[in-house]
Amino acid sequence: MSYQKSTNVSWQDGKVSLQDRYKLIRQRGATLWMTGLSGSGKSTIAIALERALFEKGFLSYRLDGDNIRLGINKNLGFSAADRKENIRRIGEVSKLFTDAGIITLASFISPYQKDRDIVREIHQQSGLVFIEIFVDCKLESAEKRDPKGLYKRARKGEIKNFTGIDDPYETPSHPEIHLISDRMSVEDEVEEIIKYLSEIEILV
Amino acid sequence: MSYQKSTNVSWQDGKVSLQDRYKLIRQRGATLWMTGLSGSGKSTIAIALERALFEKGFLSYRLDGDNIRLGINKNLGFSAADRKENIRRIGEVSKLFTDAGIITLASFISPYQKDRDIVREIHQQSGLVFIEIFVDCKLESAEKRDPKGLYKRARKGEIKNFTGIDDPYETPSHPEIHLISDRMSVEDEVEEIIKYLSEIEILV
Repeated sequence: MSYQKSTNVSWQDGKVSLQDRYKLIRQRGATLWMTGLSGSGKSTIAIALERALFEKGFLSYRLDGDNIRLGINKNLGFSAADRKENIRRIGEVSKLFTDAGIITLASFISPYQKDRDIVREIHQQSGLVFIEIFVDCKLESAEKRDPKGLYKRARKGEIKNFTGIDDPYETPSHPEIHLISDRMSVEDEVEEIIKYLSEIEILV
Repeated sequence: MSYQKSTNVSWQDGKVSLQDRYKLIRQRGATLWMTGLSGSGKSTIAIALERALFEKGFLSYRLDGDNIRLGINKNLGFSAADRKENIRRIGEVSKLFTDAGIITLASFISPYQKDRDIVREIHQQSGLVFIEIFVDCKLESAEKRDPKGLYKRARKGEIKNFTGIDDPYETPSHPEIHLISDRMSVEDEVEEIIKYLSEIEILV
């Protein structure tokens, strides 16, 4: 049993390394960055993936609007500068979680390639795994779903600069995983992600 | 073996809860907030504590100037407003880590009671454990140590608003743990923290 809590403190010097943590919790950290239109299914996939990983014994943690916009980013609005800073901060938090050994599930529209590339770079500079998952869904399908009624409000002009309506969504140019969410089942999407994580030995 | 990675995905609905995560990694999350003067020994204690927890099979993660000031807070300076925002963001990150089930070791001077109380509140509002650890050290002792040569520079006026020199350090009014770092050994300090964590059943 490798996750044994011993009752003795044995004194050793030195910082606990990334490798130490990986060995302790028997997994490697990675940031899974889900990008796509509002209503494309990012959160649904993240919740199902979190559950599937849990059932397999892996610790993951979801970062999403619920715990970010109301917390660390509550002092940010929706201006261009604030959106950029929003993604930058989430990228830095993801990096810390991944460094801690957690499988980090970040689901945010993150419409701009440049901002996503900055997050990728933040990870790669520290030798941490960053996986961009494009949750690809036709605007019509996302708008039809409209789980939060946001498209309706954007069409009425009640929300400005809404991605897909009056603000662009830049399609990922090199995502590690490409899911067609208006054609695939959530189960298949989760299986595809898990298969990829196994292949690159995040799940062993 | 409770931290078993199964090879089958069994489908279950619903979000993974805090309790689920605690069960999976067999520990409860908690934020251990180390506050004290520059040079009081906060980081030294955090590094030794991280090692001791690791040896006992517990996953902890250190947040400190190295990974925060160069990352998520790299766009903050040392004005009053920026210092407050610095602590607020660290508090929010600590909260997320603790929510994930990690024993979070945050070591920052954090000189103002009000800012520390905000961090405490952020945790308590979400039912998360926050433990304030006062790393108490006489100014003379900290200045004598001066591991980074900062006191020398502050005395010369090269650094303004330096805590203890020309900016106040507000002594914690209700810390859960009070360590006298210029009289205790690091080993004793770590033992005292571990004893406390056992008593409140963070370590079981």
